[in-house]
Amino acid sequence: MDVNKTKYLQFVELPEDVKKLKTEELPGLCEELRNFIVDELSHNPGHLASSLGTVELAVAIHYVFNTPYDRVVWDVGHQAYAHKILTGRRKKFSTNRQFKGLCGFPTPKESEYDSFGTGHSSTSISAGLGMSVAAMLKGEDRQVVAVIGDGAMTGGLAFEGLNNASMDKNNMLIVLNDNNMAIDPLKGGFTQYLTDITTSKAYNKLRHDVYQWCKQRGWISDKQKQRVQHFSTSIKTLLTRQANNIFEGLNIRYFGPVDGHDVQTLVRILEEIKQHEGPKVLHLVTVKGKGYKPAEDSVTVWHAPGEFNVLTGERKAVNDKHKHPPLYQEVFGHTLLEIAKQNDKVVGITPAMPSGCSMNIMQNELPERVFDVGIAEGHAVTFSAGLAKDGMIPYCNIYSSFLQRAYDNIIHDAALQDLPVVLCIDRAGIVGADGATHHGLLDLAYLRCIPNVTIAAPYNEIELRHLLYTAQFTKGVFAIRYPRGRATCIDWKKDFELLPVGKGRQLREGDDLAIVSIGAIGNTVTKAIEMFEEEYADASASIAHYDMRYLKPIDQDILHEVGKRFKKVITVEDGVIAGGLGSAVLEFMSDNGYAPRVIRLGIKDAFVEHGSTAELYNMLELDVIGICNKIKEVLEHE
Amino acid sequence: MDVNKTKYLQFVELPEDVKKLKTEELPGLCEELRNFIVDELSHNPGHLASSLGTVELAVAIHYVFNTPYDRVVWDVGHQAYAHKILTGRRKKFSTNRQFKGLCGFPTPKESEYDSFGTGHSSTSISAGLGMSVAAMLKGEDRQVVAVIGDGAMTGGLAFEGLNNASMDKNNMLIVLNDNNMAIDPLKGGFTQYLTDITTSKAYNKLRHDVYQWCKQRGWISDKQKQRVQHFSTSIKTLLTRQANNIFEGLNIRYFGPVDGHDVQTLVRILEEIKQHEGPKVLHLVTVKGKGYKPAEDSVTVWHAPGEFNVLTGERKAVNDKHKHPPLYQEVFGHTLLEIAKQNDKVVGITPAMPSGCSMNIMQNELPERVFDVGIAEGHAVTFSAGLAKDGMIPYCNIYSSFLQRAYDNIIHDAALQDLPVVLCIDRAGIVGADGATHHGLLDLAYLRCIPNVTIAAPYNEIELRHLLYTAQFTKGVFAIRYPRGRATCIDWKKDFELLPVGKGRQLREGDDLAIVSIGAIGNTVTKAIEMFEEEYADASASIAHYDMRYLKPIDQDILHEVGKRFKKVITVEDGVIAGGLGSAVLEFMSDNGYAPRVIRLGIKDAFVEHGSTAELYNMLELDVIGICNKIKEVLEHE
Repeated sequence: MDVNKTKYLQFVELPEDVKKLKTEELPGLCEELRNFIVDELSHNPGHLASSLGTVELAVAIHYVFNTPYDRVVWDVGHQAYAHKILTGRRKKFSTNRQFKGLCGFPTPKESEYDSFGTGHSSTSISAGLGMSVAAMLKGEDRQVVAVIGDGAMTGGLAFEGLNNASMDKNNMLIVLNDNNMAIDPLKGGFTQYLTDITTSKAYNKLRHDVYQWCKQRGWISDKQKQRVQHFSTSIKTLLTRQANNIFEGLNIRYFGPVDGHDVQTLVRILEEIKQHEGPKVLHLVTVKGKGYKPAEDSVTVWHAPGEFNVLTGERKAVNDKHKHPPLYQEVFGHTLLEIAKQNDKVVGITPAMPSGCSMNIMQNELPERVFDVGIAEGHAVTFSAGLAKDGMIPYCNIYSSFLQRAYDNIIHDAALQDLPVVLCIDRAGIVGADGATHHGLLDLAYLRCIPNVTIAAPYNEIELRHLLYTAQFTKGVFAIRYPRGRATCIDWKKDFELLPVGKGRQLREGDDLAIVSIGAIGNTVTKAIEMFEEEYADASASIAHYDMRYLKPIDQDILHEVGKRFKKVITVEDGVIAGGLGSAVLEFMSDNGYAPRVIRLGIKDAFVEHGSTAELYNMLELDVIGICNKIKEVLEHE
Repeated sequence: MDVNKTKYLQFVELPEDVKKLKTEELPGLCEELRNFIVDELSHNPGHLASSLGTVELAVAIHYVFNTPYDRVVWDVGHQAYAHKILTGRRKKFSTNRQFKGLCGFPTPKESEYDSFGTGHSSTSISAGLGMSVAAMLKGEDRQVVAVIGDGAMTGGLAFEGLNNASMDKNNMLIVLNDNNMAIDPLKGGFTQYLTDITTSKAYNKLRHDVYQWCKQRGWISDKQKQRVQHFSTSIKTLLTRQANNIFEGLNIRYFGPVDGHDVQTLVRILEEIKQHEGPKVLHLVTVKGKGYKPAEDSVTVWHAPGEFNVLTGERKAVNDKHKHPPLYQEVFGHTLLEIAKQNDKVVGITPAMPSGCSMNIMQNELPERVFDVGIAEGHAVTFSAGLAKDGMIPYCNIYSSFLQRAYDNIIHDAALQDLPVVLCIDRAGIVGADGATHHGLLDLAYLRCIPNVTIAAPYNEIELRHLLYTAQFTKGVFAIRYPRGRATCIDWKKDFELLPVGKGRQLREGDDLAIVSIGAIGNTVTKAIEMFEEEYADASASIAHYDMRYLKPIDQDILHEVGKRFKKVITVEDGVIAGGLGSAVLEFMSDNGYAPRVIRLGIKDAFVEHGSTAELYNMLELDVIGICNKIKEVLEHE
């Protein structure tokens, strides 16, 4: 798409340029913006469907509000592409999600228009309330807008925010972007409730008529009405508007539902309600993938479709006929179904990620044994603990960085009661383009300090299968962490094996240096050793490699052997080195009176940016070359 | 109180004995039970007010349901004394909260009647739903009751549970125990909303009359009614019951409000509604402290009053005229107010613990700058991050074990954006009688792995003052953890000093052994060294003691000195040794090529039971004698 041929978009760099347009020109801008996003994402993949759903909203917000003085918090943030394009980043948008390019999520480091960093769900109301209260305390007339999807509204944090919104003086506007979807279609009471509001116009009209009849006939007198008004919600609101309105019940003014794709109406309504004091909700009904037919028809697939042909709607990944190893998540999905078929106590729990984690494979065949609980990681774990307490074996799949949201649930509800909850931790380690908010780098450290937790990480997908199989026979919390992306073997569907808890394996013998690794980064170690031997063929050094399989309980036999036999040890993990495998090895050596030199490789004490996993591991010196260089350095250091 | 003189209680060991009574005899049992609790707690302190509020409910539940086959989950659990007394633990109740005695919270380890362990708030709906779904999957006709207070309902996890309750087939009964209180009086939209329901009887009657009028006159025809019934909530429900009902909005049947102290009515209603299929809420209105006048009059004080005189209502603690060092929490409270008076950017945030953490001191003087957000730790931190983003300096006070519930909020909303949020972590370390759910033993380990977080722990209350003062001038997340209970100095109100970030101090010189400690347990170390010198006066060994003050960034100068000068190092912390101070010291020594023998003292990898802090530290060998013995052992081990 040639931006120079657009009527409006080429002149729009910043919100002030949007404000120069007449309202009747805004639909034209929206159309160009939408085409621009579709075109860009067709060759530089990103979050398509959700971003198409918020084009009009982004335009209307920047048209009506005085950003960045006024604050906008985009919950989750993957729907904020239009916002980014309208706020000085159109020309850089082709670098979206790339190494050193634009971040795929709002981040204040990138632009002052990104009022608050997001990535995880359901934070916007709490953060926005903080900003709105800060404005009040400082006597500033700043407006704060929190844009939150109905999916994010299923998270408990959003409810905590709503519950507080009416308490303190603030003018926050919550825009509820209701498309009846998370990445997968939503379920749950609240979702049903929003549908009810939206579809109950006729019903509301009926109630309105009843009220008018009664009033005309004098059956609702002014006196009665006054009495009624002693209560928090007036009878007028109750009988003529959404009587059954949760937001009004929480003392937050409710406006809507409104068509979120009618930009002129949106502008008018935002102008009106920004005058109203106090917290308020504007309920928009939007369509994920709006304006791009293939995306509208198949929203989950088009959440993040990869590269595609704009005209035909063909996605490149689908057309790829080469035989690849499976994704780790696919191995999880197929294996869970196999296990569930063998053991009727096995159930699956996912917080709104059935397709993302491939639990939909089991869901399709055994729907009554899979529970998609919405974006509610805390509930997912405590619900799993309840299931486990009464005899089921829950496999609860949560991405590593999202599992941080269920930390106390793991400790207090599962581990403390020693309940057999299997935590399947997808997207552990570096996840690539999603960046800092999504990397799963803390799990090894934050789980290791919890009693009654077994922590495993498979070297490859065959090991993942065996660990998933083993988990059903163990006690206490059993955590299996594995990475995002492709595994290593085409022929992975091996017969199940029990992998004894707390036992690792030696992958390679050697005498001069022991490398101790955990998880899939062990493959990089294997290659690094091979590279070292090729590059330095004359080097007489021989290297042993141990795959620990379990971080906790850690294999004491292996570590005694390492402690006794080696003067040099390198530990390798794709997680932070403060508290993970390297620390565990140091602790063991210290406690048992060994004193090898231990070099801990892993993530240093800093958040990691976005980019391809290859670029990031390279930057972190945790790729094959990086580890090979470290081996050389350690062996040379006599 | 002489149980042998009671009419009913002496014959009640188990629920089957309650079932033998006639319903008209139940009020008598309730009265005796209440007197028993008051009497027991007058000399063996515990949670009084909340337990008095649930006497009738506990009796009614065990009268109506078939426990323990039917499950009861007591949210938070400190209100479950009557339940404990009715389920085989009356005779042991005098050991409540004592070392090796009954646990103050429900725990399945103690009794099969304790269906699920609780302690932290808001877990019961999720756990109960798991149990109810498990029963369905296994084809068992088991009933599940979750008893949850209105305070616990402000936690997001409870909302996540409610949102899921209508999704899957289950028969769970949620009993909402509404007393308009957490430990402190509640605020917030939801609380206001419950008050509105409860007080709107007259209004409901009006709506009922309107409906009847309309119906009698044929204005609501059956045809219209049918049309209306296409929607999730019927017009009958809407016009005759609580139209504005959040629970019905979430597709959960609502019953109530009902007087929670009318045991006969309770029994009747529970009998009725346990027949109803699907999830349901029974809304009880209760009075905290019910039946004991002093407690009814002053609920917050009588939440956990300590020992008291039953007849006069005098609390022993109040009458204690001896001059004590202050509680750490009091030092926090007074100091925060001082700082807030000097710096108008400072605000206080507490999740429902203004009196527990002493933020009520600032709240009384500067109410507009203190925010009690309800039992909502996640929101507390993200709200703080929002405040910090727009220029305020939030001091967010959360108990250590509860901070686990805000883990991702710390990582994703505060640390990742490097926002200056001051986390004041009360009740760190061993907390005593509250036990396993409440000890704050993981914080050092789980915070240390997060980038951009400073972690400090004061040696005593004077240092706490200085750290609180210092925090306002730093960047990023600044965590200060300090223990429950009495500090050490009478004269603690010293002038403020800046304590440079990442700098510790040497408390004592020595040559043969270095002890490196962090936090208030350093006092125990000081005494242990003194004891060692007294006991072994002839020992020529001299011991150095370093108080690190900051775990992160850790004082490298001190550790270089230790690494260079000492062959033996003992680290001491009141937290888990997997990942905390000891690990940090090992990592430093390893990274810098030092190889002293490092002995790490702290909490081993197991949950710790309840008891007095003295008993528990003794058991853990972390009291003066335990550490003294360890010093001897290490020095003798040549």
